[in-house]
Formats: sequence, structure tokens, C-alpha cells
Amino acid sequence: MKTIGEFGEDGLIAQLCEGLPSTERVVVGPGDDCAVVEVGDEWVLLKTDAVVEGVHYLSGENPKRVGWKAVARVLSDFAAMGGEPGEFLVTVAVSRELEVRWLTDLYEGIKSCLGRFGGVIVGGETSSLPVGSPTVISIAGRGRLSRKRLVTRSGGKAGDGIFVTGVLGGSINGKHLDFYPRLREATWLTENFSLTAMMDLSDGLAKDLPRLAKASGCGFSIEKESVPCSEDVSLQEALGDGEDYELLFTCDQGSKLLEKWAGRFPGLRLTRIGELTADQEDSLVGGWDHF
Amino acid sequence: MKTIGEFGEDGLIAQLCEGLPSTERVVVGPGDDCAVVEVGDEWVLLKTDAVVEGVHYLSGENPKRVGWKAVARVLSDFAAMGGEPGEFLVTVAVSRELEVRWLTDLYEGIKSCLGRFGGVIVGGETSSLPVGSPTVISIAGRGRLSRKRLVTRSGGKAGDGIFVTGVLGGSINGKHLDFYPRLREATWLTENFSLTAMMDLSDGLAKDLPRLAKASGCGFSIEKESVPCSEDVSLQEALGDGEDYELLFTCDQGSKLLEKWAGRFPGLRLTRIGELTADQEDSLVGGWDHF
Repeated sequence: MKTIGEFGEDGLIAQLCEGLPSTERVVVGPGDDCAVVEVGDEWVLLKTDAVVEGVHYLSGENPKRVGWKAVARVLSDFAAMGGEPGEFLVTVAVSRELEVRWLTDLYEGIKSCLGRFGGVIVGGETSSLPVGSPTVISIAGRGRLSRKRLVTRSGGKAGDGIFVTGVLGGSINGKHLDFYPRLREATWLTENFSLTAMMDLSDGLAKDLPRLAKASGCGFSIEKESVPCSEDVSLQEALGDGEDYELLFTCDQGSKLLEKWAGRFPGLRLTRIGELTADQEDSLVGGWDHF
Repeated sequence: MKTIGEFGEDGLIAQLCEGLPSTERVVVGPGDDCAVVEVGDEWVLLKTDAVVEGVHYLSGENPKRVGWKAVARVLSDFAAMGGEPGEFLVTVAVSRELEVRWLTDLYEGIKSCLGRFGGVIVGGETSSLPVGSPTVISIAGRGRLSRKRLVTRSGGKAGDGIFVTGVLGGSINGKHLDFYPRLREATWLTENFSLTAMMDLSDGLAKDLPRLAKASGCGFSIEKESVPCSEDVSLQEALGDGEDYELLFTCDQGSKLLEKWAGRFPGLRLTRIGELTADQEDSLVGGWDHF
């Protein structure tokens, strides 16, 4: 009998999602950055994400930064679908020995991030863990979405340029806790350009780009020397470190896009790193597997 | 500096929710069984709930029963607001040493419960825990709600009868894993009667009734001998055991309600156990605190 570690994350998710029933209200089901559900005339984004002590942050970390990260990860997924933050539910599973102050600081971090990017807490749950267990923080959210703005992972076509925002790698040095979800940028992109596919980079370009290409039924070709690396970070680290929380997207309006971007977001790089192909050309090694 | 255990659950939640910002889209915020949010012309229920190994189920338990329980708890909260199941996100935080089979069985249990009561899985997350950590399963869901059906905890008035479905106590003998969320019953109740307040019983009548009364700005008076006890369960156990997942509600149409109920649900008891009062009359001892 196989363990989860032997199976790996993508295989596990495929197995769990196999043959799941659906309804006509489900516009996008499992496998994208968020689910999309029809409510009356509106489309709604649904997303949940968890951070675990010792896995996503160190035990002694400032809880305000942990709270910021926990909710910013969900916001980053809303951005990746072309959506905006709505309402959030906060679940904390903690030992009864934890100081109340830790939790109130965690909430401060969450509120501070939502205060900046939009969204409100509407509920949640506190659950007790046996003493000594790592703390688990799970945040579920509803995002708002204009129908014409929706971008999934699966609309890319051969020939589309592949773009990433910002610089990649080295997130462990601090960015993984303090990053800005690219909501403003995604809103501007979906308003002004026809993006064909988009996702946020959480497990490293080497892991995430093949996922986007596969969902779009394409291969990809990358100019590795063009991959934007963080300072003092090697190409392999930029490809594999993970937790970049930058946007990865495809678009066939390349030069116009790069020019307008530079005028609108002069402080943030946008880089064309290659293009989608009809057949598999390149492959990438590295990236973060959760198990 | 106080620990969470010293603070207790209700005090902790009050502290965390103090001064939370809101928006005009939030119809019901933290403190009820679910949050209610306006989406276009519709109202949507949002809820999250977690079960923890060693707290909500024993380590050797059949994962199908664990899955059923995990999602049925959320369905029970939808019922308690007069709503119906919609779409669900499943978060599992597990050690990589766990067998894949355990997770696929967990999903079987979730799907079996949703197959019976409605609702579909649209996404989720798998997150790794350090080896030896207790498994955490968190389920977030969106419920559907007809505006005229909404029942909160806060609408009760002095003189309203207090009712409970089923029998209370002794859930640990098995019911806590296999219970049926009272969706059908709540739908019938909200369709045919004006309920003034409702919640589901998860922490024991002794803990939950004071919460409902307080939210309604009332006291309560209970005829203790009328509290419906499970077989071989003492009154104190019925009041305090918790995990009953029955409906607790208030209504001023008592005799008509009891008569019609008996015709509609002959296999399930409905009991009037007392009434809401203008001032605090009774108090109850017992019930489950999560910390």
C-alpha cells in the first residue's frame, strides 16, 4: 500500500479528484487556482489554503507575518483567476498552551493584509490540537469575479508568449512571508489584454509552468537565460525554490503588453521567458512537492 | 500572558472578532452557525469546520466515517440557518507517511454524505505535516439560501417555545460519526413555520442554549425533566456530552408545530423543553469547551 510521500502531490490530487460529481453551477472545478461557481447571475471564486508551523513558517516567527502570509496566499490565487477579494473564514487549529497574544497577532496580520488589498473576515473556527502538535492555519475565501475577466490555466495556445511578473527564487529569505499578492497587476492585465492562461507561482516555475502547459494541452519552450532571478540566486534556485507568488501567464500580444506594462508598473519587472508550443519541447527539473 | 486554555473558546472568539471591519455585502458576520453574504440578488452561506485526529475521532477510526463526519458537520450548520448544501473545498493536512488509501477512503465518506444530502466538492488542498502530527481535516462550504428562509440565533423573543429535535447525549457511542444532518427537517420547518431563532447542537445543550438565548437578548426557562435523553444516558450527560447535531430552535406556534411534526417525521422526536424569558431565569452547567 503506497504512502502519500511515495505518490507525490499531483498524483494524489488526480486520484482524489477522479470521478467527482459536479453540477451545472460549477463553472471551474478542481485543478485550477480557484473553483468558480455560478450564483444567480454572478460568478464566485472559492478557495482554501493552509499554512503549517514548521512547514510554511518557523516556530518562532512573528505571528503577524504568519497571518499576512496565510491570507495573502489566497489573495494570490484570486489574482491568478482575474478576481478580487470578498469574504474570508479563518480556521486555526492550535494547542491550548499557546498564548492568546499569538492568535490576536495572527489576526492582526490577516487584517492588515485584507485592509491593504480588500476583503473582510466573516467567520471561522478555533480547534484544539494535542499539546506539542504544529499549529495549522487554514483560510477559505470567496472572491468576486467579473465574467469577462476570468482566466483559467487551460486557455493557452501554441505560439502564446509566456510571461512572469517580478523576480524568482530566494523567497525563503523573507519574501515568502511579506509578499504582495499581484491583485492590482492582474486586474490591470485582465482589463487591458486578452490573457489566455494564468496561475500564481507557488511551487516554483519548474513545477508550475508544466502544470499550466499541460492544462492548456501544450508544450513549452523556455529561454532559460531570460528567467528573471532574484539577487544572488542561481537559475536553478529561481526555477525551483517556490513561494514566489508572482503571476505566470500567457498572451499573444507580447510587445504591446511589455511596453504598456513598463509605463504602468515601472517598479515591477515583467519578462517574456518563452512560448507555448504545439508539442512538448522543453522540460524543467526542480520545484516544490508538498509531500 | 494568558494561554488559550485559560481563556476558553467563547472568550477567545469574542477577542478575535472584536472590531472586525465589515462591508454592506455581509448580511450575517461572525458568531452565528454560518456567515451570510450577498452576491448579486442572492444570499450565500459560508462555513468552515475542522476535525482533528485524537480530538474529534480516534486514530484507528474508519476514514470513511471520518469523512462523513467532517462534511456532515458543515451540512448541519447549513441546516441550522435554513439553507441547503452547495459546493465544498476539502483541506487535509497529513503526514507523508499516511497511506493513500486512508485519504481515498476519507473522500469516499465525504462523497457518500454529499451524495445523500446534496453538494459537490469543487477543490481543496493537501498540506504536509511533520511525521507524527495528528491529521487535520478542514472543510469549507458554500450553502444556498432562500432569503425568506434565513433563521439566525438572534431573533428569539421572550415567550417563544424552545424545541429540540431527536434525543441528546451519548453521541460518543457512535452517533458523532454517523449522524444525519437535519437538512430535510430544517427545510420543512422553515417552509411551514416562522422560526425565530435556530442553531445546531454541537457543544451540548448546556453550552449552546445559553449562546442562543444571549444572541437573542433573552434568558431561558427549562423543564429539565422534559429534555429528551438518549437511551442509558443521564440528564447531565444529555445536557453536556455535545456532538448531538440536532436542531435547537425557538418558535411561538408550539402546539400546531408539534402536531404537524409528528405527522411529517414520525421517526424523529421533537420536544418542547422550555421557553425564552425576558430575564435570566435558569442556568445550565456542562457542555464542551474546545480548549
